[in-house]
Amino acid sequence: MPQTTQKTTKQRAVRAPKQEKPPRAPKAEKPRAPKHVRKSQSATSAKLLKPKGKIRVIPLGGLQEIGKNLTVIEYEKDMIVVDCGLAFPEEDMLGVDLVIPDITYLEQNADRLRGIFLTHGHEDHIGALPYVLRSIQPPIFGTKLTLGIIKNKLEEHSLPFAPDFRTVNAGDTVSAGEISVEFIRVNHSIADACCLAIHTPLGTVIHTGDYKLDLTPIQGEMMNITRLGELGQEGVLMLLGESTNAERPGYTPSEKLVGRSLEYIFTSNPKKRIVIATFSSNVHRVQQIIDISAQHGRKVAITGRSMLNIVGAAVELGYMKVPKDVLVDISEAKRFKPEQLTLITTGSQGEPMSALYRMAYSDHNQVTLGQNDLVVLSSSAIPGNEKLVGRVINELSRNGVSVLHDNDMDVHVSGHACREELKLMLALTKPRYFMPIHGESRHLAAHRELAQEMGVPDANIFISEIGKVLEIDAKGARFSGVVPAGQVLIDGYGVGDVGSAVLRDRRLLSQDGLIVVVATVDEESRLLLSGPELISRGFVYVRDNEPLMEEARRVVQRLLISTLSSGKIGDRMQLKTRVRDELYRFLFRKTGRKPMILPVIMDV
Amino acid sequence: MPQTTQKTTKQRAVRAPKQEKPPRAPKAEKPRAPKHVRKSQSATSAKLLKPKGKIRVIPLGGLQEIGKNLTVIEYEKDMIVVDCGLAFPEEDMLGVDLVIPDITYLEQNADRLRGIFLTHGHEDHIGALPYVLRSIQPPIFGTKLTLGIIKNKLEEHSLPFAPDFRTVNAGDTVSAGEISVEFIRVNHSIADACCLAIHTPLGTVIHTGDYKLDLTPIQGEMMNITRLGELGQEGVLMLLGESTNAERPGYTPSEKLVGRSLEYIFTSNPKKRIVIATFSSNVHRVQQIIDISAQHGRKVAITGRSMLNIVGAAVELGYMKVPKDVLVDISEAKRFKPEQLTLITTGSQGEPMSALYRMAYSDHNQVTLGQNDLVVLSSSAIPGNEKLVGRVINELSRNGVSVLHDNDMDVHVSGHACREELKLMLALTKPRYFMPIHGESRHLAAHRELAQEMGVPDANIFISEIGKVLEIDAKGARFSGVVPAGQVLIDGYGVGDVGSAVLRDRRLLSQDGLIVVVATVDEESRLLLSGPELISRGFVYVRDNEPLMEEARRVVQRLLISTLSSGKIGDRMQLKTRVRDELYRFLFRKTGRKPMILPVIMDV
Repeated sequence: MPQTTQKTTKQRAVRAPKQEKPPRAPKAEKPRAPKHVRKSQSATSAKLLKPKGKIRVIPLGGLQEIGKNLTVIEYEKDMIVVDCGLAFPEEDMLGVDLVIPDITYLEQNADRLRGIFLTHGHEDHIGALPYVLRSIQPPIFGTKLTLGIIKNKLEEHSLPFAPDFRTVNAGDTVSAGEISVEFIRVNHSIADACCLAIHTPLGTVIHTGDYKLDLTPIQGEMMNITRLGELGQEGVLMLLGESTNAERPGYTPSEKLVGRSLEYIFTSNPKKRIVIATFSSNVHRVQQIIDISAQHGRKVAITGRSMLNIVGAAVELGYMKVPKDVLVDISEAKRFKPEQLTLITTGSQGEPMSALYRMAYSDHNQVTLGQNDLVVLSSSAIPGNEKLVGRVINELSRNGVSVLHDNDMDVHVSGHACREELKLMLALTKPRYFMPIHGESRHLAAHRELAQEMGVPDANIFISEIGKVLEIDAKGARFSGVVPAGQVLIDGYGVGDVGSAVLRDRRLLSQDGLIVVVATVDEESRLLLSGPELISRGFVYVRDNEPLMEEARRVVQRLLISTLSSGKIGDRMQLKTRVRDELYRFLFRKTGRKPMILPVIMDV
Repeated sequence: MPQTTQKTTKQRAVRAPKQEKPPRAPKAEKPRAPKHVRKSQSATSAKLLKPKGKIRVIPLGGLQEIGKNLTVIEYEKDMIVVDCGLAFPEEDMLGVDLVIPDITYLEQNADRLRGIFLTHGHEDHIGALPYVLRSIQPPIFGTKLTLGIIKNKLEEHSLPFAPDFRTVNAGDTVSAGEISVEFIRVNHSIADACCLAIHTPLGTVIHTGDYKLDLTPIQGEMMNITRLGELGQEGVLMLLGESTNAERPGYTPSEKLVGRSLEYIFTSNPKKRIVIATFSSNVHRVQQIIDISAQHGRKVAITGRSMLNIVGAAVELGYMKVPKDVLVDISEAKRFKPEQLTLITTGSQGEPMSALYRMAYSDHNQVTLGQNDLVVLSSSAIPGNEKLVGRVINELSRNGVSVLHDNDMDVHVSGHACREELKLMLALTKPRYFMPIHGESRHLAAHRELAQEMGVPDANIFISEIGKVLEIDAKGARFSGVVPAGQVLIDGYGVGDVGSAVLRDRRLLSQDGLIVVVATVDEESRLLLSGPELISRGFVYVRDNEPLMEEARRVVQRLLISTLSSGKIGDRMQLKTRVRDELYRFLFRKTGRKPMILPVIMDV
């Protein structure tokens, strides 16, 4: 593996200059109809072309953040999108359910959009589709499992039209105007994942999607490093490389390692019921659990809606094979002795409504956990979920349940390339330009360091952010302007109607609650007709603090009466402001708190 | 080290039966005045006694939770308290600043309380004192640094009296009625930490406080395992052992290891300014940083209020030695080249107002960080703070600052005993009874397993919880009833006036905001005089959603008019309920959200 600086630099320099491009194919040639072309052909023809035209790379999500991955790649008039993911809300996005990318730019350029190309079926790569498809309807390309998962998802969202799904296999190339997109097999924590080689007349851009190198995958093939190496030899103009594990040394272990740990757990716990929580989309993990259970003469029951959904889809599509008579319905769980049963469940992130959570808190209809149970969390806590996961572990421990998690044993492996694999990708593809993607600043910075180590000149590494346009042409690469980008918050059915003003109010309300001040005045006769009444929520326990609330009421009352009698009422707004300020000062002095104050003053 | 089951069990069995106790000393013998007695004497006299009387062990904090450590230990009429800590609020305690234990039980038994004995000066062991001292005023025993830190803290809380502080040294024994309390040196991430041997006529209870075994401490002595071993040979009735790291294998490394890593960092970054964030209370860490800086010819500037406070106290009390002319004021930082300066700062947990946070976000008056800076987070993220710490690392990375943290290098070591040290404690003390303390359920369960492994019979291990009374007498040990216990939330100046109802409201408000519905009716004439007006906060961005809000207003209007005209108004409460229900249904159908609805209906 050529890892030294000198070698990679030298190899990059070898890239043959491209030759004159033939006249552009007329648009009539079905620009939006995908046709599966063997990659080698398009690569050959690309080689005959002279570098010409302009590529623009515009991330709309996934940079300087985790999730909502979406990258726009344009060559002249043609535009494609790679992935269309969602993100989970940050802690300070109170009440928000999901976050998706702002796709204003796609909506404005819908006529140029040749397709959305999906690398794999994880939420952070496909989850925004149900929302995005409300305004744009390009064809959607993905492998069988990826599209299978989306179709499942879309059943919950009733779209007014049937999306244009087009199934591809790893190895296929799809043309999208002057761009052609080649799907290349990678390994990941979900089956049927691909990276993309995006061929343009100017050169090839590789988008890695999410990947790892698994030399012994459970099903399917190893990542196609041969093809990546070929592309590297032919010349890769730019690499967009995922950065999730750019801070982690070494190689990510094979999924097989988890199988070995599970085998050990099953062997050394022959009398216990074994309950394994994992990510439902990791069908290879689930496959291993089922296989090992069968080998140990155990039946397997599955619980949790998403787990049932995905296992169903995976079996139907041929991604999983379940030995005969092994699966039993969860409702039959009680019929089996502990040593006869394995449970596979959702909830490995401690999600409060998940099956595992309900089992831990004795709130699951079919399963009660106790001293005869061993719970294995075959997962790692996603950053921010540590506390939730800890809560479930504590509740299980309290009930005498044994718990094993990834700190105890290798019951989980990451789906993302660690530093040595990231270096391998750089060594194979030898890109002229490099942009780390999919990561927070810290990950992008760490990935940049790796690229430098692998010989990519500093000037050819671009740390970008969402909305920032990177332009590449024969003269080089440079940042050039921005397009609209951001986050769209989804709360209930609302898409984008919760913004910073609403969040700020929720934050204020969550800290010290609120007080509504109600009074009716007659401005003409200068009389306070009724009130003031103070209604508080989330401020103080009123029953124990009546003197405080009564004193506060009197403060407002005095203010209203003196203002009315002085005749200097001003407009209603001024009066409200005075009530708010006076009460605010009083309450802060008394309690050190700053509740939101809403004065409602009516004039009859 | 006797670690096998058989050996420890055998040794435990060797404990000689105690002999008849001499007539009890009259109370006049200054029961509340501490006098420093050499431990060996009291142990000898204890040996002559026949087991008699009853011990009660009552944790009021620190079990099934992290923080607010407080344990009550009683022998007959005498009561002592070990530690008096606070906890930081859980995520769902919106707006809460701090959490302290419910001390109703102490207040009810204040006449029996002979003293509060502090093991060390961390917030989770002393932080509740300023609040607890408002209602009870027992003498407070602790080592010099521990009391020094509290005195500093109390300056912010103006108590109406001077607390009765009594300084002890490791090795001292204090009598507290029939109980005598021996302070025994341990190592921890703060200087001057002790565990306690609590001697009673019935036997000795050891409370470990927080500890680790550091064979090469920076200052002071190694944990006094000799004394613990002696106590084990004499016979330990019960061990209360801290469980923080009960899930972590091996031994916690020495604080010296951090020094070696820092030495390497300083040597390999000769051109950069080095900024080190750590816990202010870890005076040994700060000492090492100062020493290494001085060796490398760097000046040291300190920033962050708590860091300045503690370094000041530690130097004054002789716990730190600063070489001459090394410290410079932070305001002079700009005068020095990067390679001439080390900054020591607070903010290692990513706290939003801390010095490091402000530096990262370019909001610090004296320091701006950039490419010439290396930031070392000499700490590990406290569970729940991972995201905050990550945010600071990202912001630093974005600005080109290099960052090193405990995933990269050994720049932090824990202050708590890992599994092998916990086993050592069990092996040395050979307790008849064992109660794991200081930990969540998972840690207590893991510690129980260790005790079983070390030969403590299952029936002699007690997993307790706050408020639960463990009673020990000559016949054995058993749980026996409960006392009031719980958490008291502190918000602003309020102690305990925020409870579950207030928190529930804050939670509701934080999720979907609120809508206040205001209307004035005249019930007699059955007329709607004014309104309804809808005022929303944190629900939806009103300017973009006027049609929705107008429709909602009409829903309420129709309801009010039809109810008024039908004459079936019922009482005001019923009318409000109907408005709330109707609007709730409408809004949920339209938006999928459930804002809090506050109807204010006035009758004139």
